[in-house]
Amino acid sequence: MSDSYFHPVSGFDLPRFAGLPTFMRLPYVPPEHERFGQVQIGLVGVPWDSGTTNRPGPRHGPRQLRDASTMIRAENGSTGVRPFEALNCADLGDVGPNPADIQDSMARITSFYDGLMSAGIRPLTAGGDHLTSLPVLRALAKDKPLGMVHFDSHTDLFHSYFGGTMYTHGTPFRRAVEEGLLDPKRVVQIGIRGTAYDREDRDFADSVGIRVIAIEEFHARGVADVMAEAREIVGTGDTYVSYDIDFVDPAFAPGTGTPEVGGPNSYQALQVVRELEGIQIVGADMVEVSPPFDASGATAYLGASVMFELLCVMVGSGK
Amino acid sequence: MSDSYFHPVSGFDLPRFAGLPTFMRLPYVPPEHERFGQVQIGLVGVPWDSGTTNRPGPRHGPRQLRDASTMIRAENGSTGVRPFEALNCADLGDVGPNPADIQDSMARITSFYDGLMSAGIRPLTAGGDHLTSLPVLRALAKDKPLGMVHFDSHTDLFHSYFGGTMYTHGTPFRRAVEEGLLDPKRVVQIGIRGTAYDREDRDFADSVGIRVIAIEEFHARGVADVMAEAREIVGTGDTYVSYDIDFVDPAFAPGTGTPEVGGPNSYQALQVVRELEGIQIVGADMVEVSPPFDASGATAYLGASVMFELLCVMVGSGK
Amino acid sequence: MSDSYFHPVSGFDLPRFAGLPTFMRLPYVPPEHERFGQVQIGLVGVPWDSGTTNRPGPRHGPRQLRDASTMIRAENGSTGVRPFEALNCADLGDVGPNPADIQDSMARITSFYDGLMSAGIRPLTAGGDHLTSLPVLRALAKDKPLGMVHFDSHTDLFHSYFGGTMYTHGTPFRRAVEEGLLDPKRVVQIGIRGTAYDREDRDFADSVGIRVIAIEEFHARGVADVMAEAREIVGTGDTYVSYDIDFVDPAFAPGTGTPEVGGPNSYQALQVVRELEGIQIVGADMVEVSPPFDASGATAYLGASVMFELLCVMVGSGK
Amino acid sequence: MSDSYFHPVSGFDLPRFAGLPTFMRLPYVPPEHERFGQVQIGLVGVPWDSGTTNRPGPRHGPRQLRDASTMIRAENGSTGVRPFEALNCADLGDVGPNPADIQDSMARITSFYDGLMSAGIRPLTAGGDHLTSLPVLRALAKDKPLGMVHFDSHTDLFHSYFGGTMYTHGTPFRRAVEEGLLDPKRVVQIGIRGTAYDREDRDFADSVGIRVIAIEEFHARGVADVMAEAREIVGTGDTYVSYDIDFVDPAFAPGTGTPEVGGPNSYQALQVVRELEGIQIVGADMVEVSPPFDASGATAYLGASVMFELLCVMVGSGK
Amino acid sequence: MSDSYFHPVSGFDLPRFAGLPTFMRLPYVPPEHERFGQVQIGLVGVPWDSGTTNRPGPRHGPRQLRDASTMIRAENGSTGVRPFEALNCADLGDVGPNPADIQDSMARITSFYDGLMSAGIRPLTAGGDHLTSLPVLRALAKDKPLGMVHFDSHTDLFHSYFGGTMYTHGTPFRRAVEEGLLDPKRVVQIGIRGTAYDREDRDFADSVGIRVIAIEEFHARGVADVMAEAREIVGTGDTYVSYDIDFVDPAFAPGTGTPEVGGPNSYQALQVVRELEGIQIVGADMVEVSPPFDASGATAYLGASVMFELLCVMVGSGK
Amino acid sequence: MSDSYFHPVSGFDLPRFAGLPTFMRLPYVPPEHERFGQVQIGLVGVPWDSGTTNRPGPRHGPRQLRDASTMIRAENGSTGVRPFEALNCADLGDVGPNPADIQDSMARITSFYDGLMSAGIRPLTAGGDHLTSLPVLRALAKDKPLGMVHFDSHTDLFHSYFGGTMYTHGTPFRRAVEEGLLDPKRVVQIGIRGTAYDREDRDFADSVGIRVIAIEEFHARGVADVMAEAREIVGTGDTYVSYDIDFVDPAFAPGTGTPEVGGPNSYQALQVVRELEGIQIVGADMVEVSPPFDASGATAYLGASVMFELLCVMVGSGK
Repeated sequence: MSDSYFHPVSGFDLPRFAGLPTFMRLPYVPPEHERFGQVQIGLVGVPWDSGTTNRPGPRHGPRQLRDASTMIRAENGSTGVRPFEALNCADLGDVGPNPADIQDSMARITSFYDGLMSAGIRPLTAGGDHLTSLPVLRALAKDKPLGMVHFDSHTDLFHSYFGGTMYTHGTPFRRAVEEGLLDPKRVVQIGIRGTAYDREDRDFADSVGIRVIAIEEFHARGVADVMAEAREIVGTGDTYVSYDIDFVDPAFAPGTGTPEVGGPNSYQALQVVRELEGIQIVGADMVEVSPPFDASGATAYLGASVMFELLCVMVGSGK
Repeated sequence: MSDSYFHPVSGFDLPRFAGLPTFMRLPYVPPEHERFGQVQIGLVGVPWDSGTTNRPGPRHGPRQLRDASTMIRAENGSTGVRPFEALNCADLGDVGPNPADIQDSMARITSFYDGLMSAGIRPLTAGGDHLTSLPVLRALAKDKPLGMVHFDSHTDLFHSYFGGTMYTHGTPFRRAVEEGLLDPKRVVQIGIRGTAYDREDRDFADSVGIRVIAIEEFHARGVADVMAEAREIVGTGDTYVSYDIDFVDPAFAPGTGTPEVGGPNSYQALQVVRELEGIQIVGADMVEVSPPFDASGATAYLGASVMFELLCVMVGSGK
Repeated sequence: MSDSYFHPVSGFDLPRFAGLPTFMRLPYVPPEHERFGQVQIGLVGVPWDSGTTNRPGPRHGPRQLRDASTMIRAENGSTGVRPFEALNCADLGDVGPNPADIQDSMARITSFYDGLMSAGIRPLTAGGDHLTSLPVLRALAKDKPLGMVHFDSHTDLFHSYFGGTMYTHGTPFRRAVEEGLLDPKRVVQIGIRGTAYDREDRDFADSVGIRVIAIEEFHARGVADVMAEAREIVGTGDTYVSYDIDFVDPAFAPGTGTPEVGGPNSYQALQVVRELEGIQIVGADMVEVSPPFDASGATAYLGASVMFELLCVMVGSGK
Repeated sequence: MSDSYFHPVSGFDLPRFAGLPTFMRLPYVPPEHERFGQVQIGLVGVPWDSGTTNRPGPRHGPRQLRDASTMIRAENGSTGVRPFEALNCADLGDVGPNPADIQDSMARITSFYDGLMSAGIRPLTAGGDHLTSLPVLRALAKDKPLGMVHFDSHTDLFHSYFGGTMYTHGTPFRRAVEEGLLDPKRVVQIGIRGTAYDREDRDFADSVGIRVIAIEEFHARGVADVMAEAREIVGTGDTYVSYDIDFVDPAFAPGTGTPEVGGPNSYQALQVVRELEGIQIVGADMVEVSPPFDASGATAYLGASVMFELLCVMVGSGK
Repeated sequence: MSDSYFHPVSGFDLPRFAGLPTFMRLPYVPPEHERFGQVQIGLVGVPWDSGTTNRPGPRHGPRQLRDASTMIRAENGSTGVRPFEALNCADLGDVGPNPADIQDSMARITSFYDGLMSAGIRPLTAGGDHLTSLPVLRALAKDKPLGMVHFDSHTDLFHSYFGGTMYTHGTPFRRAVEEGLLDPKRVVQIGIRGTAYDREDRDFADSVGIRVIAIEEFHARGVADVMAEAREIVGTGDTYVSYDIDFVDPAFAPGTGTPEVGGPNSYQALQVVRELEGIQIVGADMVEVSPPFDASGATAYLGASVMFELLCVMVGSGK
Repeated sequence: MSDSYFHPVSGFDLPRFAGLPTFMRLPYVPPEHERFGQVQIGLVGVPWDSGTTNRPGPRHGPRQLRDASTMIRAENGSTGVRPFEALNCADLGDVGPNPADIQDSMARITSFYDGLMSAGIRPLTAGGDHLTSLPVLRALAKDKPLGMVHFDSHTDLFHSYFGGTMYTHGTPFRRAVEEGLLDPKRVVQIGIRGTAYDREDRDFADSVGIRVIAIEEFHARGVADVMAEAREIVGTGDTYVSYDIDFVDPAFAPGTGTPEVGGPNSYQALQVVRELEGIQIVGADMVEVSPPFDASGATAYLGASVMFELLCVMVGSGK
């Protein structure tokens, strides 16, 4: 049972448009806060998009996700989980990046998550572009490689861009495998689709044993069947969940830099997370929400809804 | 057969962007009009949103719905119904609310609908937020409680908000049951989903016998099966149909104040209405269309399309 | 195998936001260009909307489609086809219309496509409203009537508008049949839906033998079954493919002048084209993309994605 | 004094968002209405843009102008004029154009305005693109040429476009002079600016004696001085006022097809009309408001505000 | 000199898009905070718009103003004032209104500001619609009537709306004078313009001695001259400053419910506040910023910029 | 006199919405083109924003500026200059940056401009953020320091950001002075305003002799007087002109990352460039146009209009 200090503000008491917009109306408990040590799951913003190769914007993601997340209430209408009563959840604030220096930013991010590891806090991250996952994994997988369930329309497994640039949002998991942060045999990528430059990423996946479930297979088999396989792949070991909002069809999530048409709808977007129940989640992220391309805020609202589903399965995670 | 006076203007004669935007290009026949007594189905606007607890805007709904409805033509492409030839339909204008006084506004609305009852006109209402349904039901259910088919992502059955406020768009059907306007045994709510504050609304539904079909059940069983049950619940008695546009997934209907992701698509949004054929509809409404959050007008256009489907089943209704 | 001159620029070399936006980053080879004679498939813009009876805008379609198409990469992720390596593809530029003279514009368009026929170039056209297809067909079907697979929510088979006006975007295929450009027995229209003025278009279709597959049938039978019938209807003869973006549900393709709710989703929008494999495509078009109603650019991006699918099946077409 | 039948609805009684949006909330009195003969100033919509050479949209202008005009109240805050009490004003509805036939549309427009002339109604027109003014002038100047005060950033005096097309929104006043509808010696054009194709229009103006006041002169001399000259040019004879919304700087009026930066601000936009007091206005128009390029509605609201100023000076006009 | 605890975060250290968006990146010090007693100027949000008679939205104002205010830096580039170093400034959070009960909301607001008075904190308020000023004045003017400098395009001095409704955003200062909260001889209203229902508000102003400076006089005399008179009117006594964002021309501030064209530009919008130097400001507000009508955020950014100017003159105020 | 090959396409021949959008509809002549050596003034895109410290987007600037620039015609309506007839002007394409590596990008840009210097082409650049100017100056000022007229609301003279990062869009001219690319005594900065972090940039300006004309001085003295001083400062030596679109008030140019309210209007935005006549311009740029924040395209259109004015004075420049 959680400490009532960590319960969010209710819309029955304070209208949802009022008050500072923290994640899900949780208390704001940055690392220097006296209650930081009591936090069990920490929601963190990483406002950073220096790895973006095309349309920038995810640096504005955390702020818009916080705003949209004020629509979230206490209970999961589908599963009945009440995460804020189960564990102490809090908004830990943002990691401050250096927008003009990629290496410096990655060092700052890893350092922040090292602090969470020390405090025993499991992180639920709001990015940021997908390069964000790499410095996070450097902290979380310090001791041993993790498994990963990865929802995306791209593999993000490329070697490099623009004549040898190694750190972009198209390369994080190539680096993570190379650095021993991920156990490729326990990695599954779901929803891959769209046009391709070449097969270099897929060849790499095949060579190291990453399981790629393309969208055609996803649509043909359905959520339940695909996710049963995903749970089997990651097994009972520590697992990271990385959710790129461009996994979802752009009609449901237009606000992202590299949309690919033909993806899952919003109901499936939630279902895949609910089907993670039972795996050991040591951290999760929601990345590539890009407010400049999300005029209506619909993408951020879906992103916040998915974050709530992630939180619900993290709470149930036996960790 | 309808009087040709009540036939809408055709886009073959006058382009759809021309002319005053009445509902579906019908003649404008307010209560003081000489033909008012000949109207059989009246389309009414209730531009009012004082019951809104979060994002306001439905007060602008009727005007935008009228504009969008000029895209509607004479015949239902799916069912072949030509409603304007079957019965005398007209745009009865708007009820003028008092934006700064909830009780005064409710009295004005009930009074307007009392006039329709006296004239034997069945109303198809364009709201307004969902509190609109309460003063309408006070006129329509004056003599005996009605059954109701209610499409929504929320039950709107809460007791009160903000420390005891009884009249908001989250409470109309709690009040309607308390006031004897609805027979809870003949009420079915379809599409309920999203996060919840608590179970107080669901407990009330259970205690009085309202049937709640959550979205998981809806997606699992499909439209035909769910609607067969809905028809059975309301049976052959007089029935009201209340359609909150947030029943539909926000990708299809973004322009609303309290969207919930994971809902039906636009085809299902139409199908559920077509499946109402055969029940006794004494009135219907389309509520919570909020133009300030509907920059593209897509929500209003879907709302107008659903209103046309409602009209088609009302015409077939044996009343 | 194509000449490497005709290979598009890769996003690995030049970021997608850089460079002049030609269709799919192909070389720009207008008729006066020295390499024009080597082109096998030509992508052509027809920026024209004088046939539009309601909301104008498709005259801006080609430019926005070019911009969106810079997101397209080299390989079809689903089918593995690499069209730019198979045949010489190029952006042939735009046909310059006369926005204030319909007949003059149609003459200019037919003349341009006559030039393509002479050079042996198969055209993939970006419209323009749907009247565009008529002057294109006048060039392509000069010798004998063509079959046609037509994706749309409207039949575009009406006789006339506004008291006798014969050339609008609601009449092109009526004219094409009358002029002997289409063999009605080899024409199939898929996705038809929405409200209707009357049955005059459908009666015409019946009378000449055009097969109309309404959306209810489409949703009930599924893509594979419907498309098998479509392939059978057009058979092995020369066939044109006309794709009105309003075939797709407006949640996925809002930027069009006459949307109809309840249509296919974006995955189905791609699938129907993939299922054209094996037919003899002499030309294809993507019409009715209307940038003024597509603030987010999502429609153009879907339109460009469909164009890529069309290109992939054209490449495989045995012509 | 006007008949109270013709008084607009007050926002004190019915909120401005309620009710059918007629021009300035005036009664709707189309030609077939019994009170048509009592109208003294008629507000007319001409939803038509077939003369547009670049970005279309003004066909949607009248509807949006009506909507915006519901913000207008009874009294001119600057001049104290209360036009609706002075003369019988009414919304006469729209002229139905033929969007696919320019000549047919012009005939329909002239015919409608012939009817107004017969009934002794002075028209205040909401376009429509600027070609609208030509068929209107054909009715108003049937007997003798008119003077004109013309606010615009373009002269609209070109001979032809696209190889000889004579009727576009860049040519109406060339035609009007040629047809003897305007007395060029009594025509003044104010606000002309932007880049130019060539000097052909300006040479024509010089050759026939039209006075062109470019924006540099306007900014240098100021409103009062420029307008004193304008009043002198048109003198005491019958005069038409044509107001192209692109006269105003696009920061204040973005929703138009051919904006030119560096124009007057919104205060000057109103002032120039107030300075028309004393001239004999037989008709006026507000053209080129293009809703597809006016997402916020600001242009329509400015257009409606200018229309109210035009109405105020028309009321004071000694006619 | 201020305590460094109250210094805002610098964009040189943490990028402006990172971190929780408090007003001007100040510390968040709600009433229950241990440092509340040290605050000298408190920035408060009042997210409330129940008094709005037309287009709602200002309930979302405080959140958007906070977001925009993260662009504000430490020093006034024009006057050199560094307010955060002069006095202890903090974000005190929002007053929680009851969106469905006007009287309850006003009681909550007055109660919150009573708390500020007790603590000796001068408030700078971000509304909310203009009715917000009334419950604030009830706390600030408890002991004696205040003078007021009021920037607006409307007087907000009407008696009532909709048949006797006394509390709307068009009536706050009528009520404030009646309740003895304002000394009408020390009240000046600047920028009044637009169409008017009638003269009832102006007659009231005349009868009690309120000075109204209409926009024509403002533009004719210029900022310096007008503001010299304003300073003289309020004199050396305690004064409230109320700034309705619709004072500014809608090209610069589109996001408001009742815009009036022809207003001051953004430079004048700042200048008028700078000219308040020397008067005794006991509180100030920025009201009627309406995010649903401010898609680009420009209005909120101007509003935040004006709030910074207000803060700078409040700091210099001799209180 | 220019070669007719270099004349732009006229809107009288091909509508402005048709054809590939090159800058001002000029021929596309990249460095490998056979006519490259004949170009006298080259329009270049630098789609790059890696130096942006807050809201990204200018990487999309060149494409949107090209699109907007298709509205530009042949002759300057104010000055009568016809630049395309005076000198051979062409669109040279974009420099391809490396979005994930600042140093690599700067090297690529300098290299491209080295090529222009070798070919004797004077560049008119469309950025990109303001860091773009630095690598351009490294090519243009290789031999000796240049003078500069700099329009902006910021000095861009800061030492570093985020704890020592030297290359951002807030530091280019500090670096340029340090590297000897600019002669600070011949540099004038016009329009500086907004809140400031500190005085470090202004102190540097003072210490090296850069003349800063703040917005208060600009508004007080007027365009003609200020620009006379500017011409005097740069004198007859080689001069660069750098135009940050945020020089202009955000009502006229909303689409930029760091707007500051209270700036010049669009007429003044043009006037200041016209007043550059007579100075020796070796190159110019238009930077910080950010399409993601420019939904209406108004900023790009103003940017393109200013670029045309820059081109006109470059043509007249005695070089």
